Amino acid sequence: MLRFLTAGESHGQALVAILEGMPAGLKVDRKKIDANLSLRQAGYGRSRRQSEIEKDRVEILAGLKGGITLGSPIALLIRNRDNTIEKLPPVFCPRPGHADLIGAMKYHHKDLRCVLERASARETAARVAMGAVCKLFLEEFNVEILSHTVAISKIQAHTASLSFSQIKSKTKNSPLRCADKKAEKLMIKEIDSVKKTGNSLGGVFEVKVKNVPPGLGSYVHCDRRLDGKLAAALMSIPSVKGIEIGMGFECARKTGAAVHDEIFYKKEKKFYRKTNNAGGLEGGVTNGEDIVIKCALKPIPTLINALSSVDINTKKSKRASVQRSDVCVVPAAGVIGQAVTAFEISCAFLEKFGSDSMKDIKNAFSFYMKEISL
Amino acid sequence: MLRFLTAGESHGQALVAILEGMPAGLKVDRKKIDANLSLRQAGYGRSRRQSEIEKDRVEILAGLKGGITLGSPIALLIRNRDNTIEKLPPVFCPRPGHADLIGAMKYHHKDLRCVLERASARETAARVAMGAVCKLFLEEFNVEILSHTVAISKIQAHTASLSFSQIKSKTKNSPLRCADKKAEKLMIKEIDSVKKTGNSLGGVFEVKVKNVPPGLGSYVHCDRRLDGKLAAALMSIPSVKGIEIGMGFECARKTGAAVHDEIFYKKEKKFYRKTNNAGGLEGGVTNGEDIVIKCALKPIPTLINALSSVDINTKKSKRASVQRSDVCVVPAAGVIGQAVTAFEISCAFLEKFGSDSMKDIKNAFSFYMKEISL
Amino acid sequence: MLRFLTAGESHGQALVAILEGMPAGLKVDRKKIDANLSLRQAGYGRSRRQSEIEKDRVEILAGLKGGITLGSPIALLIRNRDNTIEKLPPVFCPRPGHADLIGAMKYHHKDLRCVLERASARETAARVAMGAVCKLFLEEFNVEILSHTVAISKIQAHTASLSFSQIKSKTKNSPLRCADKKAEKLMIKEIDSVKKTGNSLGGVFEVKVKNVPPGLGSYVHCDRRLDGKLAAALMSIPSVKGIEIGMGFECARKTGAAVHDEIFYKKEKKFYRKTNNAGGLEGGVTNGEDIVIKCALKPIPTLINALSSVDINTKKSKRASVQRSDVCVVPAAGVIGQAVTAFEISCAFLEKFGSDSMKDIKNAFSFYMKEISL
Amino acid sequence: MLRFLTAGESHGQALVAILEGMPAGLKVDRKKIDANLSLRQAGYGRSRRQSEIEKDRVEILAGLKGGITLGSPIALLIRNRDNTIEKLPPVFCPRPGHADLIGAMKYHHKDLRCVLERASARETAARVAMGAVCKLFLEEFNVEILSHTVAISKIQAHTASLSFSQIKSKTKNSPLRCADKKAEKLMIKEIDSVKKTGNSLGGVFEVKVKNVPPGLGSYVHCDRRLDGKLAAALMSIPSVKGIEIGMGFECARKTGAAVHDEIFYKKEKKFYRKTNNAGGLEGGVTNGEDIVIKCALKPIPTLINALSSVDINTKKSKRASVQRSDVCVVPAAGVIGQAVTAFEISCAFLEKFGSDSMKDIKNAFSFYMKEISL
Repeated sequence: MLRFLTAGESHGQALVAILEGMPAGLKVDRKKIDANLSLRQAGYGRSRRQSEIEKDRVEILAGLKGGITLGSPIALLIRNRDNTIEKLPPVFCPRPGHADLIGAMKYHHKDLRCVLERASARETAARVAMGAVCKLFLEEFNVEILSHTVAISKIQAHTASLSFSQIKSKTKNSPLRCADKKAEKLMIKEIDSVKKTGNSLGGVFEVKVKNVPPGLGSYVHCDRRLDGKLAAALMSIPSVKGIEIGMGFECARKTGAAVHDEIFYKKEKKFYRKTNNAGGLEGGVTNGEDIVIKCALKPIPTLINALSSVDINTKKSKRASVQRSDVCVVPAAGVIGQAVTAFEISCAFLEKFGSDSMKDIKNAFSFYMKEISL
Repeated sequence: MLRFLTAGESHGQALVAILEGMPAGLKVDRKKIDANLSLRQAGYGRSRRQSEIEKDRVEILAGLKGGITLGSPIALLIRNRDNTIEKLPPVFCPRPGHADLIGAMKYHHKDLRCVLERASARETAARVAMGAVCKLFLEEFNVEILSHTVAISKIQAHTASLSFSQIKSKTKNSPLRCADKKAEKLMIKEIDSVKKTGNSLGGVFEVKVKNVPPGLGSYVHCDRRLDGKLAAALMSIPSVKGIEIGMGFECARKTGAAVHDEIFYKKEKKFYRKTNNAGGLEGGVTNGEDIVIKCALKPIPTLINALSSVDINTKKSKRASVQRSDVCVVPAAGVIGQAVTAFEISCAFLEKFGSDSMKDIKNAFSFYMKEISL
Repeated sequence: MLRFLTAGESHGQALVAILEGMPAGLKVDRKKIDANLSLRQAGYGRSRRQSEIEKDRVEILAGLKGGITLGSPIALLIRNRDNTIEKLPPVFCPRPGHADLIGAMKYHHKDLRCVLERASARETAARVAMGAVCKLFLEEFNVEILSHTVAISKIQAHTASLSFSQIKSKTKNSPLRCADKKAEKLMIKEIDSVKKTGNSLGGVFEVKVKNVPPGLGSYVHCDRRLDGKLAAALMSIPSVKGIEIGMGFECARKTGAAVHDEIFYKKEKKFYRKTNNAGGLEGGVTNGEDIVIKCALKPIPTLINALSSVDINTKKSKRASVQRSDVCVVPAAGVIGQAVTAFEISCAFLEKFGSDSMKDIKNAFSFYMKEISL
Repeated sequence: MLRFLTAGESHGQALVAILEGMPAGLKVDRKKIDANLSLRQAGYGRSRRQSEIEKDRVEILAGLKGGITLGSPIALLIRNRDNTIEKLPPVFCPRPGHADLIGAMKYHHKDLRCVLERASARETAARVAMGAVCKLFLEEFNVEILSHTVAISKIQAHTASLSFSQIKSKTKNSPLRCADKKAEKLMIKEIDSVKKTGNSLGGVFEVKVKNVPPGLGSYVHCDRRLDGKLAAALMSIPSVKGIEIGMGFECARKTGAAVHDEIFYKKEKKFYRKTNNAGGLEGGVTNGEDIVIKCALKPIPTLINALSSVDINTKKSKRASVQRSDVCVVPAAGVIGQAVTAFEISCAFLEKFGSDSMKDIKNAFSFYMKEISL
């Protein structure tokens, strides 16, 4: 059973994550984790903090010897360069759309800083670091994950015709992780124009997973369905307000005949589909097709041109507080989406194939894959 | 900590659920559970099985004395009238969109019946029964839940202007649990016409929760966010492929200023909002506004005019098997949506306010509500 | 992940258990579950209720087809013949040593019956039924479990020189599940004599497990240690107040050289030990030797010659209430000990070797056993 | 819900713990955590490493602002001064009684160092640090915990007549945390003499908890019993092989009349007992009397005069490896016992009284305590 805990405030000393349950015998390259952390910080529309102040580097404090997992818990630490939590001024005007107000109520905090330090999306760096380890695990079985931006505000990218590897290569050096260059130009324009007005933007990212073995997750108990677990993991990324698996809301508008992916068989391909409207999940279980999930992000709640709020002490109307922030975080959110997806798939993988060592898991994996292709 | 397990095959002896963690001192009226079970079975577009063969009635085997909860686990049993699992013929042609094929692979079953008996949506009756108990618990705190049909296929209901209680009353005797009578007529027509072609339909339902105390769920750890838990619970309803909280995908297309719900304060109302685009959840925590969630349902995978499939033994192309089934289950899915939502909110409620007895919980609830309105 | 919930009051309709996570493809013989239930009810010193009124028979309501597990949750039901919970008189005088008083406080119950109905050891029948399924699972891997009585009151059985199979055969038709016939006679005498005084007796039982594969449980995180999980499972059997693994408290009195089991190697035996003071667990992990655990049972708290107590309403001194009860339950407790041990070992087994189907698990098991004997 | 993960190898960079679920508003004094860490390192019979090399100091990386908990996860870090894991030589001869051999099998490690680095008791420093935070939480409700040494090898301390506070004061400056000075002298002699022979010693420690509110834990489901949870927590301390709650094994030798704590009532004391053979737990629930638990420790497995073992590569007989180690760790184990007990009681406390803020919990606690004393 793979599990984790994270800790860390936005301007505290560090973000910390413990990932428990990774099998022994996996090579973990610290640089690959850092590469994921960099991706999270990149993206047109990020604030100066992301691109300049914080250059996240992971320290692996436990769980490895000689760069190989021991089977023991992996401790990851990412230092905050801006460790000013004890010096920063108190905050009294909650931002609409943020946890500020409700966090103060729930925990009886008198200073909103006590909320926003943990409610900040900075926490996701810890999830990205852990997810990077999970991605390394999955790569051993040829499972690959990507994310890309499919919309920013009203501008849609057109990527339906692109293959997994085409999207991967096209997003590599893209400022917005977008595989449609034309759309990307318009998106950048839109970001620039909205930035000038002190406003913010949301969008949609897509996560895709390739070479997932069939049979991860289960229909036998509702809380073991992988679609549910992925939905929870992705919905718990800050600002995500909508999730679609495969065809998503569009399939509610079509008939069964137009939605369900018919089943075919050829000796050399075994069972296969010509379509993937299910997004790789039937009955909450992976069916061997690519997992495809889209997530809608609301615009980030910190606006330079701040919205109406109320001082929690004086109860007088005021503008919401302005924390250093970004205009648009869709590309970064996609990177976080990859990470949490990698974690959930790794969980289901280890549950199915055993959990102690790479050697045993590889045997179990091969045996099963051979059996189901008979 | 509230938790549950369910068991039961579609044509087995019974569905069984154990709900552990309900506090002592709650009155449980069996008839109210049955009323929820009836709602699940009703709805235009259901098969004969739902409306005639199965008339679900719950038996409460444990957890009560004199109709009051003891604090001990509650066992619920719903008998299947059609208990024929051992006599029904084997099934070899998996239905696209169903767990049939992947279930057979995952568990090495040679007869798809070994999959479809549990992968059947009949299992949801157990969740509805448990959810009904949770609704009784929440009612003690004035928390109310409804569900209604907002789309079937391409036909949208227009309900944005209706209040919670208006939707509740308008859906009461509606064959499709739809609050827009005009739209409902068109939906019924559409169901009739699609039925003739042996095809199936999906749609969208909405769940709303009123009077939720602010502060359920938490932003302090990603897996404690209530938005994530609700997403998991709802996505694990069979056929759900998309979820939107509040404004959902629409908020990805707007600016922050147009999305976030500004904060106001009046002595007699305390903190309040004029809009509820967040759907009652900010930072993964309830903010006191109504929880509003939409779920997209794909058309059900059993088609009378069956799709292309493959016999898993002969590997020859064949039409998919046809199990007794419905044309459209959107209203029923909404009832299930209520149930799983009630469970998740009850969980968060008990975590926040203690878990042993109604008396203690009511004290904790009152104290907190008074504190946050100072 | 194997998990379960149980429900049921002592004089309610039935005991119910749901066991979730059993792999597909396991043959489950209902009679073998019943045989375990009978063992739990047998034993010299039990009350008339156990031997006459309740003759427990399990009904398997879900999870099987053709006597084979489907991979779906298994629902077990044991009816109470004495279903009188709604008619029995209220109870006001708590029994010392029982949950009566504290249960009433915790849940604010005014009638102790609301406590004792669930706090009764009758609940353990559900655990025994589930444990019987786990034993069937373990038998597929040649893992065997036994329990026997090693002390009743001050009378010790001498069984140190007996082998696993000798204990098994000697306890088969023993009225006290005791492998030392001489001691057993004295124990019976003691029970008879104590019964006459309206008093009760405790004792010690031992659970042994044979052919456990090395490597179950883990030292990598404290809550994954199998010694801890077994201790929790056994301590949660009603009346257990002490637990010893292997040499137990005795090893606290000896030196390291006298306690630790030296390691040897022979080509035909691979690594082996000449002693088993560790009771099969080193570092919280099975080492391939027999698991050996002893549990101390306090005398049961219901005494015919009742102890001093207080009426919870009048607050006046009174004798404790007398519920129909046994004089000595050590043999039965041993049977429960087997059941909970079987569950915990099955959990660790499935975590290590994967969890979906007997076919896959057998492959993983063989591969690992071969690898570690290289 | 309180939960935690720890990480860290014995000679790695650091031990790390994340404690999730501590309520907001608790003052945490770093020095008090350090004091617990020092206690764990002290004690006659410890190696030079404990007393000189490692002087554990905790760094609190997350979860506090101004020394007060935020409600967010608390991250604790204890650096290893001896961070040599990558330089230390491989180990091939497993120590009997240690996880060395079985760890190598389970995870297919070729170097026993890959096992012993995590299987080392150094890991318990992380648990002690977390437990110290839990103790601070419990102190807010006047709950106090102590541990003391009641036996080393065959030498028993006589402390039955001492009160809680007497034991506390007598162990304060005791080299062995023993409240019986005469016994302690003999114990020290025994340690000295055994040390000379290169052997090791075990013993028994006792944990006591005072002012525990009645009603923590529950009998309603077996895995919610606090006796089981405490047994698991204590058994998972390295070297613990036996556990007794209250009278423990002794109560198996007595009659019910001699064991069960009769119930009395006086207006000024409410319900009370004159004896505490149950050790504060009836039906798995705290009854308001002191919790009393004894744990048996086997002698530590590292012997200077090493036992017979086998080189895992050559399969030749050899003496077991000798790691820097202690002769006797009973006093330290008691400190760990306090920590894990504090954690489990805090869990049960938060489950019963709600979990968000000290203010709310204090209200719930007072209300309940008043109700049950009516």
